[in-house]
Amino acid sequence: MENRHFTLLTDLYQLTMMNGYFKCGTHENEAVFDLFFRQKGELNLAVSAGLEQAIDYIKNLYFSDEDIAYLRSLNLFGEDFLSYLKSFKFTGDIYSVVEGEIVFPYEPILIVKAPLAQAQLIETALLNIIGHQTLIATKSNRIVRASGGKSIAEFGLRRAQGPDAGIYGARASIIGGCSGTSNVLTGQMFNVAVKGTHAHSWVMSFDSELDAFNAFADIYPDDCLLLVDTYDTLKSGIPNAIKVFERLRAEGHKPVGIRLDSGDLAYLSKKAREMLDAAGFKDAIIFASGDIDENVLESLRLQNAQIDVYGVGTKLITSEHTPSLGGVYKMSQIEIDGKPKARMKISDSLEKVTNPGFKELYRIYGRSTGKAIADLIALKGEKLEKPLTLTHETERWKSITLKDYEARPLLKQIFKRGELVYTTPSLQDSANYCKSELDKFWDEYKRMVRPHIYRVDISDELYNLKKSLMGIKE
Amino acid sequence: MENRHFTLLTDLYQLTMMNGYFKCGTHENEAVFDLFFRQKGELNLAVSAGLEQAIDYIKNLYFSDEDIAYLRSLNLFGEDFLSYLKSFKFTGDIYSVVEGEIVFPYEPILIVKAPLAQAQLIETALLNIIGHQTLIATKSNRIVRASGGKSIAEFGLRRAQGPDAGIYGARASIIGGCSGTSNVLTGQMFNVAVKGTHAHSWVMSFDSELDAFNAFADIYPDDCLLLVDTYDTLKSGIPNAIKVFERLRAEGHKPVGIRLDSGDLAYLSKKAREMLDAAGFKDAIIFASGDIDENVLESLRLQNAQIDVYGVGTKLITSEHTPSLGGVYKMSQIEIDGKPKARMKISDSLEKVTNPGFKELYRIYGRSTGKAIADLIALKGEKLEKPLTLTHETERWKSITLKDYEARPLLKQIFKRGELVYTTPSLQDSANYCKSELDKFWDEYKRMVRPHIYRVDISDELYNLKKSLMGIKE
Repeated sequence: MENRHFTLLTDLYQLTMMNGYFKCGTHENEAVFDLFFRQKGELNLAVSAGLEQAIDYIKNLYFSDEDIAYLRSLNLFGEDFLSYLKSFKFTGDIYSVVEGEIVFPYEPILIVKAPLAQAQLIETALLNIIGHQTLIATKSNRIVRASGGKSIAEFGLRRAQGPDAGIYGARASIIGGCSGTSNVLTGQMFNVAVKGTHAHSWVMSFDSELDAFNAFADIYPDDCLLLVDTYDTLKSGIPNAIKVFERLRAEGHKPVGIRLDSGDLAYLSKKAREMLDAAGFKDAIIFASGDIDENVLESLRLQNAQIDVYGVGTKLITSEHTPSLGGVYKMSQIEIDGKPKARMKISDSLEKVTNPGFKELYRIYGRSTGKAIADLIALKGEKLEKPLTLTHETERWKSITLKDYEARPLLKQIFKRGELVYTTPSLQDSANYCKSELDKFWDEYKRMVRPHIYRVDISDELYNLKKSLMGIKE
Repeated sequence: MENRHFTLLTDLYQLTMMNGYFKCGTHENEAVFDLFFRQKGELNLAVSAGLEQAIDYIKNLYFSDEDIAYLRSLNLFGEDFLSYLKSFKFTGDIYSVVEGEIVFPYEPILIVKAPLAQAQLIETALLNIIGHQTLIATKSNRIVRASGGKSIAEFGLRRAQGPDAGIYGARASIIGGCSGTSNVLTGQMFNVAVKGTHAHSWVMSFDSELDAFNAFADIYPDDCLLLVDTYDTLKSGIPNAIKVFERLRAEGHKPVGIRLDSGDLAYLSKKAREMLDAAGFKDAIIFASGDIDENVLESLRLQNAQIDVYGVGTKLITSEHTPSLGGVYKMSQIEIDGKPKARMKISDSLEKVTNPGFKELYRIYGRSTGKAIADLIALKGEKLEKPLTLTHETERWKSITLKDYEARPLLKQIFKRGELVYTTPSLQDSANYCKSELDKFWDEYKRMVRPHIYRVDISDELYNLKKSLMGIKE
């Protein structure tokens, strides 16, 4: 988010509450808020993304004269509060998982510990930025996993929900495992491979498909990937492409291949493979695009479709089946009369009850396998015993005891008293990290349909704190 | 999109094709492209939006030195082409429907007539900007219609797909009929009413709910809307709110009302209404939020829920059931050897066959009713006869003849040889326009479930042109 001024990218009620805290004299009281997401649709195992832009947002947080003038015009705020905003600066702590980390519903993926008014203001933008990119990185990762190791290019800019959804969605798709994007601006901003050749309009701008292919081959003799479905894939597109490829070969060039963008991709790709092979172009690739997602990819694998590379657009960039992450940001602790008090939201539905207190998140690995066993949400400063007993929060009979384990804290400190204390890795490093961390999860957690649900437990201390806040005695 | 530099917000293939046209010497040939959307999911009757940002984008179109350096680094383009880009400027014509216009699948809602390379470059960003805002304006309009005249506030920023999706989604929601937004930045940028009071965290920052309500009432005695579901809506939230309202009343203030954000909204709202009425607060409003969309709204109406105002978030701002519009941008005419030639994309599936030629779009109204009867896509310059016979494109027996009608051209010229010749109305004017134009459609077209499908026909001249381009003789 570089130099964009997003201080007013917030909900009005954050400002009315800030004003309220200011009037009550509680605006500097230290508060702790957890950012997490709830289970929604197909999303369980998720890939964290967006921290770099969240950092940019925090660094650029100030109220300009225009902002103050606008807020004054609302007739909701007094001059004392407006002058407090004038000198506003983020001075708190932020802890977060890194980009590319594998994360799960209900565990805190970002924690803010800051003066109450500050922590309140940033809720909306943090949810927006991290929610969006985590959503798309997760969808991208699902698509990459479903492809069985094929190269996936992100092609969704035109169907994204506005420019940022295209730009940062493409960024997130790289963290999730895409190999490149068609989006030139994302390529420029984040040093990502950009991909693409030509569209139907190229073919239509000539009097014949063959003329169009020949012209393209003349200009890009060593990058010649031809879109073959403008008029008729099997009768015209592929035969014309082969004619041009034969000329290129005679001239000493190696054609790249063809692209299918419509029709029955399983059938057409097998026919195309036969035709290309018969003409001696066994190395020519078949690239496919058009309404692809993880379900289509698994179906194409089952049908043994002859596709080497995919371009995935709309369904990735909008996360079509589940277009929001369902992220929330809840108060877990507040200073009252100088003392921290744990807080939780109570609700009839268990999934809306929150975890109180200032917390730590651990991933527990089996030392012999190197594989992840469970995540554990504990209170800050708790010691993890050896052996360690993990118990399911409501189904208390589900308990395991681990002797030989390793516990890795997942939350890193990003801001310390308002100062950035974290160096953002390159996008490719985050993508590599995601891939290597994903290898530490058993395949059963990673399948598309009814995956084994990964265990996220809370520590006994946190369990007891929740019970006491709910007034439950056992 | 004010001063943002979005020239590289495009797909790489637009640039490789531009380079191709440049090399072939066809880059200045005049091309015509149509932007339209295909029928997808629940979206048929749609509300056009995003033109203002599309205009900003076109006005800011130039290749900076950094852009040129980046493109050079890709090793795809020669210096002659890069130096052409350096002097690039949009010099074409653009025609578009205005914001708030009611539009339908397959009809051109924007037409670009420009030198081929220019028309090609802008495809991606136009689809992105107009597709996104039209999608959200349409969803907003569905939600407003389903509410039966209630006031709807847009609350989705935190769940939007990135900052722009929040900012411009909120803008589009106003065109569709929302009465305001929680998004302060959109309020500032577009002079829109901003709404919101407090969240659960306000309540949790105090030692008791009653303390929190009292403090809020002290600060906002005349804007006191209290969120009652932090702990227990019926046992704690509403009784506490009533206590505070009684005090406010005694002090000469008029409480605004309460907000429900979870639980069974139909049941809770009726109980809340009883409790408020019994305490003499018949004017206190009940505001509801939480996972609301047009289906929930229709269900709440059927149940006679006692809700006065709604806040609608995630499902509006992401258009959850159909998160992309399915917009496309297709070449319909190209100059070859100095002469315009009509072009169409041919496909096995009828809905992917495009309409050739440089076209005009009319809305036909019955003069006696003032109601819209059909839209007609015709070739530019065609005269509409009186009486006018409209025939369905494939189901040719579906034909009507109109004697007393009015035909309104829907496409206005926006750019003329690169110059902006259109003045954007205020956002509220576009919202008002949408509302008044919607009144000209019979209710049958506007219902949520299985609406009557509005007629979009093509003229006989266009029909004959399509047949001849497909090589069909009758």
